[in-house]
Parts: sequence; structure tokens; C-alpha cells
Amino acid sequence: MLDRFKVPIEDRVYVKRDQIVAATEAVFQKVGMSASDAQQSTDVLVTNDMRGVETHGVSNMLRRYVADFLSGAQNAKAEPKVLRESATMVHMDADGALGITVGPQAMRRAIEKAREVGIGVATVINAGHLGGAGYHATLAANEGMLGHCMAGPGGSQMVPTFGAEPRLGTCPIAWAAPSGKEHPFLFDIASTQIAANKISLAKRTGAKLQPGWITGMDGEPILEPVDAPGPGEYYMLPFGGTRENGSHKGYGLGAMVDIWCNSLTGVGAGFITGGGGQWFAAYDIESWIGLDEFKSHVDDFLSGLKNTPPAKGHERVLYPGLSEGEETEKRTKEGIPYHREVIDWYKSIGAELGIGIELP
Amino acid sequence: MLDRFKVPIEDRVYVKRDQIVAATEAVFQKVGMSASDAQQSTDVLVTNDMRGVETHGVSNMLRRYVADFLSGAQNAKAEPKVLRESATMVHMDADGALGITVGPQAMRRAIEKAREVGIGVATVINAGHLGGAGYHATLAANEGMLGHCMAGPGGSQMVPTFGAEPRLGTCPIAWAAPSGKEHPFLFDIASTQIAANKISLAKRTGAKLQPGWITGMDGEPILEPVDAPGPGEYYMLPFGGTRENGSHKGYGLGAMVDIWCNSLTGVGAGFITGGGGQWFAAYDIESWIGLDEFKSHVDDFLSGLKNTPPAKGHERVLYPGLSEGEETEKRTKEGIPYHREVIDWYKSIGAELGIGIELP
Repeated sequence: MLDRFKVPIEDRVYVKRDQIVAATEAVFQKVGMSASDAQQSTDVLVTNDMRGVETHGVSNMLRRYVADFLSGAQNAKAEPKVLRESATMVHMDADGALGITVGPQAMRRAIEKAREVGIGVATVINAGHLGGAGYHATLAANEGMLGHCMAGPGGSQMVPTFGAEPRLGTCPIAWAAPSGKEHPFLFDIASTQIAANKISLAKRTGAKLQPGWITGMDGEPILEPVDAPGPGEYYMLPFGGTRENGSHKGYGLGAMVDIWCNSLTGVGAGFITGGGGQWFAAYDIESWIGLDEFKSHVDDFLSGLKNTPPAKGHERVLYPGLSEGEETEKRTKEGIPYHREVIDWYKSIGAELGIGIELP
Repeated sequence: MLDRFKVPIEDRVYVKRDQIVAATEAVFQKVGMSASDAQQSTDVLVTNDMRGVETHGVSNMLRRYVADFLSGAQNAKAEPKVLRESATMVHMDADGALGITVGPQAMRRAIEKAREVGIGVATVINAGHLGGAGYHATLAANEGMLGHCMAGPGGSQMVPTFGAEPRLGTCPIAWAAPSGKEHPFLFDIASTQIAANKISLAKRTGAKLQPGWITGMDGEPILEPVDAPGPGEYYMLPFGGTRENGSHKGYGLGAMVDIWCNSLTGVGAGFITGGGGQWFAAYDIESWIGLDEFKSHVDDFLSGLKNTPPAKGHERVLYPGLSEGEETEKRTKEGIPYHREVIDWYKSIGAELGIGIELP
């Protein structure tokens, strides 16, 4: 993550993983989740926080989830059902569960199928926010498989290249692969120039948005640095930003995600129906080669990438998953640096819901 | 394709599909291919030309293929073998065939498996150039499936974000989906800012390369318009170009392609081994929903995209596959506008090999 999105030093409160897990599980259970659903859902968010992916951790998302459970917009006691199943696929109705709750269940079903026949795909409809695609893809990698996850939200955020109105969501997508000695490979992106949550994070941290990151309400790319606008005051650009810098690739990737997640699952085009289909795929590596041999090839590849001599003005070369792996090690020792305001929210929601919250 | 890559009007010679097919099949057969291999290989190249994707048509690639067959670097009489197979996957050794020959065979195997169990993946090693990933992905779409194809070449072309030396190939990737009334969806890209072939095409057409498209030999992005350099005088940037414009997304996508194609197939990291693994996947839509319903959702989505009001300064919004579908209709009537120099090459290679070439 770019430095501009990090919590300013003076506002940081360091919290150990166990503490934020306990507080978050307590909140989820209080709004109606079972203990196991609360545990699973919390693990998604806090794992993201441990990796330094604050955009998909408790800071941005938890207050929205809680509000949605309290209003009934999301179902804390959902019972996902299988709608259709074959040797290689399962299609599920989430019954209004959050994606952070049903997503891991779906990926585990895909992994089971991959273990039996080599490849498995689970798709999910009627689920809420996924908490980022990376966590779910990594579940497959942790089982010795290639993992792939994507989510087709509605179509009110990203303009197509050259378009004046939004037709796509942020269309997140992640691929994960296991490694041996190196931190595992996890390529986890939005199809927009930046993740939607980074706008609200930038607003909280006071960071500027860069040229070519968003458009005005007329769809024209804003080509100078600007303060993060409020909700409803901007549209997002596909990654690349402008056509000359490859925005048609971000746009096209997003369109693929919409078709795979929304048309395939019968939901229909995201910008018409609101979308919401999710895709979880697992490919068993040992169908091809021994897992140790695979990991050894991946280690060679990843260490070769990180040891690439850096170009002038740069300290080092990263690979997808490296800094997040390092951050997890660091945060395991030091705790997670939350913004003071996040801790205040936990304490106030704890008071409101009548649960004890133990945070610094 | 950007206008700057099109053949200048004064250099165009219009050739009908049948004519270029006959000439190309004759060349392939003369250098040793069977009639059916020549027919299949030609169909890849000429279909690309019909779609306006000259970078992967006969102009750029055929002379290289012929030279490789004549030198023995590529095997015109290859007999691909299955190395490993399961209900969902097949892993093949191409025996030195071109990817344009073995790729369609591999995708057809993936399609067969998908028809039986819902999902099929074929991987191929020891194959030559694929002629673009899009043709192969489209084979699945034509059979009512989602298609996905990618190729992991060597690692001597693209620098990682912040890197001074190349570690990746161009890592092409394509996804295709069938539609009803609309031109089919085909998202077909290189993970580099531009396809490698576009550099040689730009050299032939005299087009300038744009800022952030390539680096000098020190890995530093060239940030002003430049003439296309010769081979060995530049490296390529991931799409996005710079980190602020999302080059880490092009880099990460390319790294995924390398792992999926090269590590999974046992070839090993592309930049160490030269790579060359290829991936062909088919997902049977009717495992999920009826094909007609799917096509109707995709039509709604694609027509919604193309009918997005354009932003100021733009005529219209495209979707991946639209202009290529339109171009195919146009070229079916008018013929394919080849550069005069391409026609001259056909005539000279025809004379050299002792075959009659009938071209305008």
C-alpha cells in the first residue's frame, strides 16, 4: 500500500491480534452471529489488518456491517443453501450472509471438489461484502492449490474507458499460490485504479488522490491531485487511469469479473441488477506436479523477482504478497497500528450494545 | 487498436480472406506441416487479421515461423503427446509444435472435459508461439463455455515495477464468453503496456511509442514519445506504466501467468528456464444456467456498456470484442488491408520455396 494511505504516526494505537479478534467476535455475536460465524468473519478482517490491508480490515468495514445487521439489510443468522451442484462446481444462495462469512465456506467446498476431481468452483449469490478477494484465494493456497476469487458487485462505481457514467463495480479479483521458503504469492487487486475503500481511508488520513484516479460526475478523469471527495461526488476509473496508460485493461478485467460472477450465476448484469455474484476456484497442484516441486519453482521465481536490481530512485523490487507477508511478521510482534478513531468506535459500539470491549 | 498502429492508407493492399488463407496454408505445407495442421494454424493467424489484430496475424509472425521451421528450431511434423491426464485436466508435450497448431488441440481437449464434468483445463509445454491467447479462449466461447487462455513465455522482456532488469515475458491472457445478439466478449491482452509485436509493427508503420510504454536498458521508464527502438534496445513496462498508474497490477498479473503456466507445468520460472508453458481452460455455462439465459444477460451487459454516454472528447464507448467483431464484418466485405511489404514477402517466399502465391 502506498505510504499516503497509512495511519499517521501520532494517531496510531497498537493492538495485538488477540485483542482485536476478541473485541470483533464479541460485536458480531452481539448482533446475532453464531460463535463459529463470528470467528470466521473476524478472521477475514483481522487477517487483512495483519497483512497491512487496512482497506479491508475492521477500520473501514465493521461499522457498516454492524449497521446492516441492526437494520436487517444483512442477515446475521443466514443459512446458506446449495442451489445446484456437480462433480466440479457448487452454486450457493448465501441467504443474506456477509461474504466474509459465506465466502470461506464456499471456497472450502471448491477445495473439497478440487481434492476429489482436480478442479472445483463455487459460486455464491445473495451474499454481502466479501472483505477482499485475497483471503479466500489464500484458503486454497494453504491447502496446496491455486486459488482464484472474484466478486461482481453492482455497477455504480467505475466508468468504462471513455464513458461518462458508471457501469461497473470495483470488481475485485485475487489469485494465490503456495510457496516454500518465500512469503506466498497473493495478487489481490480491484479493477479500479484504487480500491473503493481507499477513498474513505484517504479521507480519514487526509491523503491526496493522484491524477487519473477518479473522475468528476461528468466522467472526465481528474488529472491533478485532489482531496478525497465524499460519497456521490465522484466516479472511479479503471486501473491504468487513461487509455494511453492501459485503462482499457482495467475496464476489460472488470467486465470479465461482472460476466463470470453475475451473468454466469443468473444474477444478471451488475449495473442493471445490483450484481453481487461471487466466484471461488481451486486447482489442485498435484494433478500436475508434486507440491514440493511446485513450491520450489515458485520460490525460485519469487526470490528472483525480489532480488531484481532496482531501477534508479527505488530501494527494492516487491512481488505480490511480499510486503503483506513481511507486515504480518512485523504486526505479530508489534500489534496492528489502528487509528485512534477506530478504537473509539469500538468502545462506543461496545457501550451501545452492552458488551465489554478490552482495547488499549 | 490505437490508430497509430494501423497500416498507412497509401501502403494498404486489400486481400480477401480466402486468398490469404490459401497462400498461408501453401507456405505452411511447403515447410512440412500436414494439411490439417496448416489449415488450423492458418485459421489462427487469419482470424486475428480479420479481427484487426494485425500484431498476431500473418504480417508479424509468419516469416518468423517459416524461418524457425526451416532452421529446425520449430517442428512442423510434431506429434503432441499426453503426459498426464485426469477427469478435469490434461497435460501435454507439444513436441516442438507451434502454439498456433497445438493450442486449438489443447483447448478442444479442455472443452471435451468441460462437456463431461463441467470444467476442463489443458496445459502444454514445449510449444512455440501461440498467436495470441484470444483465438483459443474463443474456441470455448463458440461451444457455449467460458474460455480462458494464457501463455507464460520467458522472462527477458518486462521489468517488474521498480526493477532495472527484465524478469517476465509479455504474459498474454484472454477470457472469452458467448453472447446472443451482441458481438461476443473477448478480453485479450498482454500484461505489458503494449504487446511485444506492436513495437515491430510501430517500427514498420513509423508510429511513435508513448510515455510510460517502455524503459531504457537501465530499466528507467521512458517518459516522452519516442521512435520504436530495435530489438535489444529496450525493456517493456507492465501495463499501467508507472506505479501511480497501476503498473503493479500489470506486473502482478504477469507474475500470476508465469506461475500458472510455468511453475504448475514443471517448466520452472520463465526468467530462469525460458518458460513456455500454456494454459487453456473451459467452464461449461450450462453447469450453472441455461445457455440462452446466460447469453441474454451478457447481451444486456454488453449493450449497456456500448450505450454508455461517452465522456467529453470521445465518440463512443467500446467493450472488449466489439471493435474486433465490427472489423471482422467490415473485412469480410472489403478484405484485409495488409501492408504492401507483407504481400511482397509472400511473393518472394513463394518464389524461394517454389510455390505459386496468388495475391493482388
